[in-house]
Amino acid sequence: MSSLRPRVQAYVKSSVLGHESTLDAFAANPGSVYTSFIDAGLANWWIPRDYGGRGVSLEESVHLVEELSYGDAGLAFAFYISILSSTMIALYGSERQKERYLRAMAEEGCFGATLGSERLAGSELLKITASAVRSGDGYRVQGEKFFSTNAAFADHLAVLVRTPGEDLDFRLFLLDRNHPGLRIVQRWRTLGCRAAATYQATLEECMVPAEAALQHNGLRVLEAAMNPSRLLIAATAVGVARRVRDVCLAYAREKPFRDDQLLSSPVFAAKIGEMEMHIEAMHSVCVQAARELDVIMACADAATQLLGRGLLKSVAVAKLLCGQSGWQVASMGSEMLGGLGYTESSLIGKLVRDVRFVSIVEGGEDVMRELLYFRHTLPRLLAG
Amino acid sequence: MSSLRPRVQAYVKSSVLGHESTLDAFAANPGSVYTSFIDAGLANWWIPRDYGGRGVSLEESVHLVEELSYGDAGLAFAFYISILSSTMIALYGSERQKERYLRAMAEEGCFGATLGSERLAGSELLKITASAVRSGDGYRVQGEKFFSTNAAFADHLAVLVRTPGEDLDFRLFLLDRNHPGLRIVQRWRTLGCRAAATYQATLEECMVPAEAALQHNGLRVLEAAMNPSRLLIAATAVGVARRVRDVCLAYAREKPFRDDQLLSSPVFAAKIGEMEMHIEAMHSVCVQAARELDVIMACADAATQLLGRGLLKSVAVAKLLCGQSGWQVASMGSEMLGGLGYTESSLIGKLVRDVRFVSIVEGGEDVMRELLYFRHTLPRLLAG
Amino acid sequence: MSSLRPRVQAYVKSSVLGHESTLDAFAANPGSVYTSFIDAGLANWWIPRDYGGRGVSLEESVHLVEELSYGDAGLAFAFYISILSSTMIALYGSERQKERYLRAMAEEGCFGATLGSERLAGSELLKITASAVRSGDGYRVQGEKFFSTNAAFADHLAVLVRTPGEDLDFRLFLLDRNHPGLRIVQRWRTLGCRAAATYQATLEECMVPAEAALQHNGLRVLEAAMNPSRLLIAATAVGVARRVRDVCLAYAREKPFRDDQLLSSPVFAAKIGEMEMHIEAMHSVCVQAARELDVIMACADAATQLLGRGLLKSVAVAKLLCGQSGWQVASMGSEMLGGLGYTESSLIGKLVRDVRFVSIVEGGEDVMRELLYFRHTLPRLLAG
Amino acid sequence: MSSLRPRVQAYVKSSVLGHESTLDAFAANPGSVYTSFIDAGLANWWIPRDYGGRGVSLEESVHLVEELSYGDAGLAFAFYISILSSTMIALYGSERQKERYLRAMAEEGCFGATLGSERLAGSELLKITASAVRSGDGYRVQGEKFFSTNAAFADHLAVLVRTPGEDLDFRLFLLDRNHPGLRIVQRWRTLGCRAAATYQATLEECMVPAEAALQHNGLRVLEAAMNPSRLLIAATAVGVARRVRDVCLAYAREKPFRDDQLLSSPVFAAKIGEMEMHIEAMHSVCVQAARELDVIMACADAATQLLGRGLLKSVAVAKLLCGQSGWQVASMGSEMLGGLGYTESSLIGKLVRDVRFVSIVEGGEDVMRELLYFRHTLPRLLAG
Repeated sequence: MSSLRPRVQAYVKSSVLGHESTLDAFAANPGSVYTSFIDAGLANWWIPRDYGGRGVSLEESVHLVEELSYGDAGLAFAFYISILSSTMIALYGSERQKERYLRAMAEEGCFGATLGSERLAGSELLKITASAVRSGDGYRVQGEKFFSTNAAFADHLAVLVRTPGEDLDFRLFLLDRNHPGLRIVQRWRTLGCRAAATYQATLEECMVPAEAALQHNGLRVLEAAMNPSRLLIAATAVGVARRVRDVCLAYAREKPFRDDQLLSSPVFAAKIGEMEMHIEAMHSVCVQAARELDVIMACADAATQLLGRGLLKSVAVAKLLCGQSGWQVASMGSEMLGGLGYTESSLIGKLVRDVRFVSIVEGGEDVMRELLYFRHTLPRLLAG
Repeated sequence: MSSLRPRVQAYVKSSVLGHESTLDAFAANPGSVYTSFIDAGLANWWIPRDYGGRGVSLEESVHLVEELSYGDAGLAFAFYISILSSTMIALYGSERQKERYLRAMAEEGCFGATLGSERLAGSELLKITASAVRSGDGYRVQGEKFFSTNAAFADHLAVLVRTPGEDLDFRLFLLDRNHPGLRIVQRWRTLGCRAAATYQATLEECMVPAEAALQHNGLRVLEAAMNPSRLLIAATAVGVARRVRDVCLAYAREKPFRDDQLLSSPVFAAKIGEMEMHIEAMHSVCVQAARELDVIMACADAATQLLGRGLLKSVAVAKLLCGQSGWQVASMGSEMLGGLGYTESSLIGKLVRDVRFVSIVEGGEDVMRELLYFRHTLPRLLAG
Repeated sequence: MSSLRPRVQAYVKSSVLGHESTLDAFAANPGSVYTSFIDAGLANWWIPRDYGGRGVSLEESVHLVEELSYGDAGLAFAFYISILSSTMIALYGSERQKERYLRAMAEEGCFGATLGSERLAGSELLKITASAVRSGDGYRVQGEKFFSTNAAFADHLAVLVRTPGEDLDFRLFLLDRNHPGLRIVQRWRTLGCRAAATYQATLEECMVPAEAALQHNGLRVLEAAMNPSRLLIAATAVGVARRVRDVCLAYAREKPFRDDQLLSSPVFAAKIGEMEMHIEAMHSVCVQAARELDVIMACADAATQLLGRGLLKSVAVAKLLCGQSGWQVASMGSEMLGGLGYTESSLIGKLVRDVRFVSIVEGGEDVMRELLYFRHTLPRLLAG
Repeated sequence: MSSLRPRVQAYVKSSVLGHESTLDAFAANPGSVYTSFIDAGLANWWIPRDYGGRGVSLEESVHLVEELSYGDAGLAFAFYISILSSTMIALYGSERQKERYLRAMAEEGCFGATLGSERLAGSELLKITASAVRSGDGYRVQGEKFFSTNAAFADHLAVLVRTPGEDLDFRLFLLDRNHPGLRIVQRWRTLGCRAAATYQATLEECMVPAEAALQHNGLRVLEAAMNPSRLLIAATAVGVARRVRDVCLAYAREKPFRDDQLLSSPVFAAKIGEMEMHIEAMHSVCVQAARELDVIMACADAATQLLGRGLLKSVAVAKLLCGQSGWQVASMGSEMLGGLGYTESSLIGKLVRDVRFVSIVEGGEDVMRELLYFRHTLPRLLAG
């Protein structure tokens, strides 16, 4: 087991537990709760050793994310979502890009951000209109990007654009945060996960050198690199569900019921038993997907493999199941805690709001079901 | 059909729709959105004609509550929850109490409040510790009360207490708002339904005359009178669920999907079809319970009947089903709207938070299931 | 309440309860359990008074079907499914057809059958290939029909065909059972509802006079007339669900649990409470749809109205909800009864098998959801 | 991966697929489908190498059971349920018992059976009344035993009895099938899994030598040894669910839908995607539990460890989840296949009936939830 896990637990215990209402209050980011994580040397734990990182596996990352999201899902998300751009860089970046960006992530705890979705292109990125058009040695990039977590203070931003007239019809470009023409429009006020900061951005007359591009088709690169991020989004639900269970147990410990505590009620017991089942199942599918990904990532041809396979079945399953089961656990919890659970003196409302994002971010449930069927079931059937 | 319904719709259209974020912001109550309802002569529509009211039936009340909660569930709750104390007064009050309180409700649109639950006595009111002890001609009332909607500005408050040493071990006393010794401790910050204001209160050395008591055992009076309020709580979910459906339809109308709108997607269609089923089923059980209650209320011995029957099976069914189905519809909605649905620019988050109260207020799902079985199924089985 | 209900209850008590395994054994039909129903004068209770029938309303029919299916769902289905062809005749038949067929149903208790679905045209009747082609004064009818309950012993059969080259592209023809060219191919061995007998049939060189046709487009006539039959299919689930509940209660009464009976277990109580909720909700939506249909049926222009409206929203809701909730109740029951419930010494297995048909016959859940959306929600939305 | 898996697949392909209706027909056991498995050297694959067995791990056993139950769940159950008695023998038997019984299982493919449950003691074995009373050097065993699979033709039977007046209040005795006084009363007609044969038995004046007893308290031995059997029961659902999915796919391949096949329908795709999620989640929790068990089994003190731990959390989770998810997948399937799926020409009805046993055998869902809470959650909470 990781030497990092106890350190992450210590961080959660000292900096997160008990601070939930602050974390839920749209504080300016990155605040001290971010910097204490970075200062503890925990940031971007997955960056490969070759670039100064810890090279923590995805299997272990699942455990770390569960610990973090037990404390606060939004915070967990803010910390791990840089894995999306870092995976793109590690697999499809030039050596120079890796040295420049991965090393900064490892050594300084910098954030990465990705600008993909647009107002009318959420689950269907094929519909994006942001574009990069040849101009001199480089490209002129223009467009509006809808949801990008950490964008306002990330060290780099990976921007997905159409490249009309080029061989590859979509590309990803890596920009520094202060790149001229890139502007943050607003921070979104989200239903939950408010310790993460998600932004809307625009790119206007943004001149980008050709070498800022990642290799390969941008859409496929993005889908390949969403394997780790979707997995960690799924794992977030495990932490939240455990917290829901513990909030219910703490409540039941104080709550009289009949001639006893609620803790002894068979109906209460049945519900917690059901929650435990969901929690273990969610954890299992995450670990299973993580192991599959770790095996692929350890291959010399990981970049090619992932490009070819796109969203792994195991990752789609983890994302879909954790979204559903996390919501179910939180729903049960929010019904169990009675009137007090309906006030802000209880955490349960926040946990319901937080866990909802698992079903939504980086592809909703419909998208996962569809990909499972059309990418995995159907081709196998038709192949025989 | 009621002549009131179009007026309530007009009120919702002019004063509620479009003001949801204000209503969701814990405004001081009663603000102008309350007074415009009262000024329109709509308040307390159910008060019997004998006391200057409109005498609107519960069946029609279900429709009115559905209209109101389509606009805002908290507002609806604030408007109809006075039916709890008014039913207690109408059925178990003295003629003087009826003249004093019901007439004020009918003519001035006054609110009523009920002080029942306590910190350690939510679903089990048998556990309350607030008490009234004989003192001179009257009683000395003491205790802490946990959740009471409208209490801070209600015209009257019905207080449930133990009466140790008396023939009836629980009683309800009617107090004016400014009764000495009655103090509002805080307004609760609730997860949803924030247009309603719910308070914690204490009663200290509160001297109450004997004639302030309602007849009969207070616990049984309260349970009898919760038939209309539980029914209207159930009906609230119908309005919210319709709003969820319409929010989803409005979203799908704007949202491109494949080569078409989301509105034409078969998977989207299936979800809305499922929502329609839930909405109609919720509405049906509410109407059915309302009709049963209206028949009882029209009997000369309604007070005795209800005291004997306690929670009607039809009302328990409505409360349980609407809590579950309302939550299911809202859950589906909140998953369908993608990233935008996870921001405060969408109503869906508020609707999820609002509808949750249906499963919680005036008895959780466990309580309803238990009462259905132990009060209805089991006695019938053992009898025959 | 109907004077028929006690008689139906008496029939169920004397002829059905306790005979379930016989009824589940694919006996030859119509056997004595059929004839005793007919001899008791209960058959086809809904036939209009003008043709010698009892003219029982659909609201009352819902109650009768619930009683019958409490005993045996297949038997109930066999008895009420003639309402499909009788409704077509009553609304869209000639006076002569009404006199001929409805009177026989009322006076002799004859069965009617409908030949609609085909191997490749179940939920999509537009795909049927059976056809009627002009030939002399009449038509030559040919085709294979897949599922038709009671067909082998019905007095009449309503056959849905294409009529290529005619003004109306689909028609329904009424045939006597012994019509030359009509042949029963096999009786289906069904998963449940085995007291009903469902047949596959063919029509070969079947010469039919023009006056055997019902008026209007056959597809639309069939859809209009499926309103009562789909409603009664829905109501079947109510009876089965009540039986499931009672089977569970009987089991729990005998079953020791801890230091008591299972009957006193809070977890058991919670499940039965949940079942009661489902049962009442199913019943409510059925009654509501029945009332709406009864109002339409009482109109002078019922035939036109129904043709215009097709499947009523309330009927689709009843069908969809009862299919789902009936299955849920049966599923809970089959899990609760332990090992004994997994043997044929328990009724629960049969009840699970029986209730499944509610979600399947005359349109599956997908079809109901789709019709709810595309026929009801969407047009209303687009209309503004 | 195991060298056995292809052989098991070959067996399923040649002897099981296509023979489902025979297997579903309560054939006399053991018939040729049993003997061909034994003759192929596949029986009792898990028996330790020390006693002539293959020593296949539980992780691999999960895969084998999935393969077998893809073909027929009852057959799979008949083949693996001997693991219950063989685990008891391997962990808590004398060397002589191991040599006698395990070697026969390994070399001759003999079956083992367990006589535990009684009419009034299913989920609560504490309530059994069968007893062993000292008599001479041995015991006189008497009692009635309710459900025992393979008992009529097993080589040995492990009988759970009370031992009043002894140090250990429950013991397990190993008897040969032809032990005088042991009598098979009947074979149960089960709802599904009919390729397995389950019997009711009695023990009358059955004299048993003291050395026939297993060590330790019989109840605790049984619970310890149910870890592998409950796990493999869970794994059965995975195979059935995969079969359900494939039955649906085969149907959709033939079924026209709109202008295409059902295979291309987005609503169909969503359902299969959901099934895939369930299948993978079920598989994951089984593998995870198997690995935990394999680690324990490899320890020198496995017998003590398991006795101390009783039902593992991971096994309870697998049993509970697979019971629920297996049922959900089968329920979806049985609704999707339309009318044809409601006839015996479709496999789906059998699959629904078969998978039901997963939630029932060796502890229902309530038992699993209760054990999860009271054995795992609560002690951990109270321990701090």
